[in-house]
Amino acid sequence: MAKLEDIVSLCKRRGFIFQGSEVYGGMAGTWDFGPLGVMLKKKITNEWWHYFVDSKDNAYGVDAAILMNPRTWKASGHLDTFADPLVECKECKSRFRADKIAEGISESVTTEEFLATHTKCPVCGKENWSEIRKFNMMFSTHVGAVLPEDTSNNPELAEKNTAYLRPETAQGIFTNYKNVLDTIYPNLPFAIAQEGKAFRNEISPRDFILRDRECYQLELEYFVHPDSWETEFENVLNDFKNFLKTRMGLNIENINFLEVAPEDRAHYSKRTVDFMFEYPNGEEELMGLAYRTDFDLKNIEKESGKSMEYRDKNTGETIVPHVIEPSMGVERLFLAILSTAYTEDEIDGNSRIVLKLPEHLAPYRFCVSPLLKNKPELVEKAKEVYNKLREKYTYVTWDDSGNIGKRYRKQDEIGTPKCVVIDFDTLDDNTVTVRDRDTTKQTRVKIEEL
Amino acid sequence: MAKLEDIVSLCKRRGFIFQGSEVYGGMAGTWDFGPLGVMLKKKITNEWWHYFVDSKDNAYGVDAAILMNPRTWKASGHLDTFADPLVECKECKSRFRADKIAEGISESVTTEEFLATHTKCPVCGKENWSEIRKFNMMFSTHVGAVLPEDTSNNPELAEKNTAYLRPETAQGIFTNYKNVLDTIYPNLPFAIAQEGKAFRNEISPRDFILRDRECYQLELEYFVHPDSWETEFENVLNDFKNFLKTRMGLNIENINFLEVAPEDRAHYSKRTVDFMFEYPNGEEELMGLAYRTDFDLKNIEKESGKSMEYRDKNTGETIVPHVIEPSMGVERLFLAILSTAYTEDEIDGNSRIVLKLPEHLAPYRFCVSPLLKNKPELVEKAKEVYNKLREKYTYVTWDDSGNIGKRYRKQDEIGTPKCVVIDFDTLDDNTVTVRDRDTTKQTRVKIEEL
Repeated sequence: MAKLEDIVSLCKRRGFIFQGSEVYGGMAGTWDFGPLGVMLKKKITNEWWHYFVDSKDNAYGVDAAILMNPRTWKASGHLDTFADPLVECKECKSRFRADKIAEGISESVTTEEFLATHTKCPVCGKENWSEIRKFNMMFSTHVGAVLPEDTSNNPELAEKNTAYLRPETAQGIFTNYKNVLDTIYPNLPFAIAQEGKAFRNEISPRDFILRDRECYQLELEYFVHPDSWETEFENVLNDFKNFLKTRMGLNIENINFLEVAPEDRAHYSKRTVDFMFEYPNGEEELMGLAYRTDFDLKNIEKESGKSMEYRDKNTGETIVPHVIEPSMGVERLFLAILSTAYTEDEIDGNSRIVLKLPEHLAPYRFCVSPLLKNKPELVEKAKEVYNKLREKYTYVTWDDSGNIGKRYRKQDEIGTPKCVVIDFDTLDDNTVTVRDRDTTKQTRVKIEEL
Repeated sequence: MAKLEDIVSLCKRRGFIFQGSEVYGGMAGTWDFGPLGVMLKKKITNEWWHYFVDSKDNAYGVDAAILMNPRTWKASGHLDTFADPLVECKECKSRFRADKIAEGISESVTTEEFLATHTKCPVCGKENWSEIRKFNMMFSTHVGAVLPEDTSNNPELAEKNTAYLRPETAQGIFTNYKNVLDTIYPNLPFAIAQEGKAFRNEISPRDFILRDRECYQLELEYFVHPDSWETEFENVLNDFKNFLKTRMGLNIENINFLEVAPEDRAHYSKRTVDFMFEYPNGEEELMGLAYRTDFDLKNIEKESGKSMEYRDKNTGETIVPHVIEPSMGVERLFLAILSTAYTEDEIDGNSRIVLKLPEHLAPYRFCVSPLLKNKPELVEKAKEVYNKLREKYTYVTWDDSGNIGKRYRKQDEIGTPKCVVIDFDTLDDNTVTVRDRDTTKQTRVKIEEL
């Protein structure tokens, strides 16, 4: 299993992921995707959208704003409960999540329970703690023509003009559920999908892109008849297993499909499955699948006073649909794919790093290069092959830097499945050398058979 | 020319765009894309990315975080100058952008100049104004383990923990320019692209999606040798004309390519062209193309202390590249496309609304339906045709609601180029009726020729 620092290092070296705002010394908990990272991320999100929306007969997309009416978060419970236990060292003023620095306690730890663990401050080593306070993880901001100085002595005015960066994309789906009914009126069961940024003000972001402050969510809500939730849950579960295996190239035998125990589930949920993936730093949630009953739609009914009822076109039956929610962040999926693909092996006594990405996810499918860059006839022929492949496959890169061995090492590290090399024989017989990423075997292939 | 309210109404009725957080009474300046809107938006952004990044040999993508180190906005000038003149009516406490309610004044209006216009409050009609204050349009938020109550009496602590929602995607590109050099080192000229949300706290958002608080930007920065900026500028200008015409279906004869006068340009720019589009409510900027010299990279050098120099691999010459920036928001492009496509005409004495979208942008390319929905043999045959077309074109919809005339009207309104109807003749001779959106002509076609 690869070490996290090796993956972080490869990501930076090859332009997959950089520290956010690196040029200014960074910005904690943020990461920027570089050229190669954008290519992989786009392929992941496109595959997800194609598989779960475009290819399905009864799935629809929405794309809601990031700034939502604050009543959204009152109804969803985020204003009250989306909070971490924050504790401050009275000696050095450092702040921590209590449940992250003490062992065996949960997010709902009390001050007494925490003090009883006799945890020492990870920064100064002292044991002199403040009370635990609830720290809401939503980022808040002021909206409208209000200046900060106008509200500093006026909490009521401040609240009236406060909005939050959405902590999840799900509510963008639920708040538009009625709009989708009114414009399309799909038959049950149907799905609504949304992808986009969600934000959480993590007290201590860590583990690379696993626990960051901005996350790109891929979220689906399946609206189902309450009588059939068990079957639908099973269907969605199997569909995701298939997706992760066939489209994302993960070894699903290695994923722990954890049935969450009743006491650990949200109070309304009758079944939740966490997809636990063995990341380099240990097992972590890759995605979650939860049966949410009519909890969200009922909350919206209560807060908005509007009916969320669905009337069956054939039977006339009127119900509030129940919801099954598979939710994931693309960063966790991205890291799972990289962890799976990252390989160090030895070829003829030379060790190398290779990303064994599925062909359809690899940033580039082909790399084309002339054996020597100072031979115009080779370069010209290579350009011809490059242009031909580019027309057909789009994702083709050109490399004439360094020597051929160096080029192979680079293409191995970015996961390019095939390197096509044009040499003097090519000029005679129109064949090229095709070198395979995984086996490093080279074969001679006619250009028109590429 | 369509009226804006007709387009807004169509967008809501057919599921292109809804008011943001509508179920809770809305959220000013935000809009949610519905199922049809997401399809169109995705096709627009995918076309843009394909045209300007994937199809080019020297273009790379980045995807930077929305929350950036605040020094970004100090260096870029946004902290000082990204501000509107805010004026308050002392009678009714309403607030306005001074330059929007008084005629003939600019964003840099002074209190004296504004008072001299003798503008009356648009809300209460009185004339009793406050001083003009600078209102920064960036949304700010607190990052890290700081509670709002901890900073209310401590402005220094508040500032230290303040971050901003990016007001533009451009700085995500500039701050990663060095990372792209270090990992890829492309030859000049090269382009870096980024798409994503940008935010501005408009004092009074208006004109539907034209002036909103969240915008999805499509941004490119071309890094060029200072000696060749004029040629490159011309190349980019022509490339965008071609893109808007051939891929976005706009009548570029109707776009006013406005050469911005020296006194209206940013002080560093030697050429700026605003693409002015005739929207339903008047001429507005569709996108801008600006020559930014080395202004941004030099600002980053100054603020970060790091060199932004580029060394030519062949000549060894060392320069800070100059930048040409074509920048647009997908919302403005979306509305330009809808305004162009929206048509009201009369067919055989019946008036109709039809969206004459280019085939490759239309949410659905085909609609398949059985002539009668209560004839199982027709439904079965229609499903067969539907599945066949779906495999080939993905974007195919099914409609068996209402009568055939109603279906055509609906498909016209969402811009579906072809409606395929299966009737009793189909069962005999395997031909179907294909009805054309624009001409409403019906032709008989063999299924295998679809």
